Amino acid sequence: MERRERADAARNRQAILRAAEELLRRHPPEQVSVERVAAAAGVGKGTVFHRFGSRIGLMRELMAERARELEQAVADGPPPLGPGAEPVERLVAFLARVAELGARNGNLMAAHEHAMVTRKGAAEERRESNPIYVSWHRHVSGLIAQGRPDVDAEEIAHMLLGTLHMEPIASQLRAGEHERLAASFAELVRALFGAGGG
Amino acid sequence: MERRERADAARNRQAILRAAEELLRRHPPEQVSVERVAAAAGVGKGTVFHRFGSRIGLMRELMAERARELEQAVADGPPPLGPGAEPVERLVAFLARVAELGARNGNLMAAHEHAMVTRKGAAEERRESNPIYVSWHRHVSGLIAQGRPDVDAEEIAHMLLGTLHMEPIASQLRAGEHERLAASFAELVRALFGAGGG
Repeated sequence: MERRERADAARNRQAILRAAEELLRRHPPEQVSVERVAAAAGVGKGTVFHRFGSRIGLMRELMAERARELEQAVADGPPPLGPGAEPVERLVAFLARVAELGARNGNLMAAHEHAMVTRKGAAEERRESNPIYVSWHRHVSGLIAQGRPDVDAEEIAHMLLGTLHMEPIASQLRAGEHERLAASFAELVRALFGAGGG
Repeated sequence: MERRERADAARNRQAILRAAEELLRRHPPEQVSVERVAAAAGVGKGTVFHRFGSRIGLMRELMAERARELEQAVADGPPPLGPGAEPVERLVAFLARVAELGARNGNLMAAHEHAMVTRKGAAEERRESNPIYVSWHRHVSGLIAQGRPDVDAEEIAHMLLGTLHMEPIASQLRAGEHERLAASFAELVRALFGAGGG
């Protein structure tokens, strides 16, 4: 009986996450209410609150799920995203994946940030304190430092990752276009690594 | 008599602009009210409204003044900012100036954007429709296209200029630090131009 309840809970949890993801793909985040998510997932509103605490909790869990998948791929996946490829190729692959993730989850990222800002009331805190941003920044600056130990890898990593959130790049991503950003990421990264004589 | 009134008006206008600039250098923008600016400039509150229409009008005029100075330097000033230097040197000089301007006017930029967002209620519109941004983007993408006709100059120009507004770069600029951003701009630009075989 308990086992069955746990299985039901896990199924509900997945249904809620997939319903929220699907709604965010087609609607601006402010239109994706807990009520709509619950209806689309075929559960009661109370179940959403019970599983995720709040709308913010649900958004945060969706982002965390995506981030875990990417982190896994970086740590253990096949090259060039995973270990085994040259730093320049790993960085190009990582930034392409990040651009794609932005395009697939543009509305989600906006919803997540909006939630963070509303909650904290301090725009400055939103990105530096975001554990996903911190982990991406660590990976990007680490790869830059391997290829170009002579440059300010931390600053350049902030610059590269920052482009994702900036209009008009962000509006390209919301429209599902990520190849353009990925191509320019690749140009900049290959140029930067090449200039070091590597 | 009329002449003297015009001279008084011009003097008041300058006093108000300089007072606002000075206040924005030392205080967060939301603390710089029309009342404070008027008091610091030694004029009545009504004079500020008469000259600039509103607080937003005053902020916009301050930004426009800075932008005109920079545009002038780009069009007619000495190289490397002005004509006569190689595109790569002009771009490095321009981005260094933009970073410096961000550091000198970080609070002003924030105030201006805050005003734009409040007025329009649409964050997406704020930057692409800003004539200063449009003119900077045109200059940067034009120089990139000269040095690297094979890359997506418009996209890379958006990426470079976008870094200015992103935390934690923006917080470096608010703290008056612009050398770090300028140095990394230079690394990226020199690498990009160098990779083209130029």
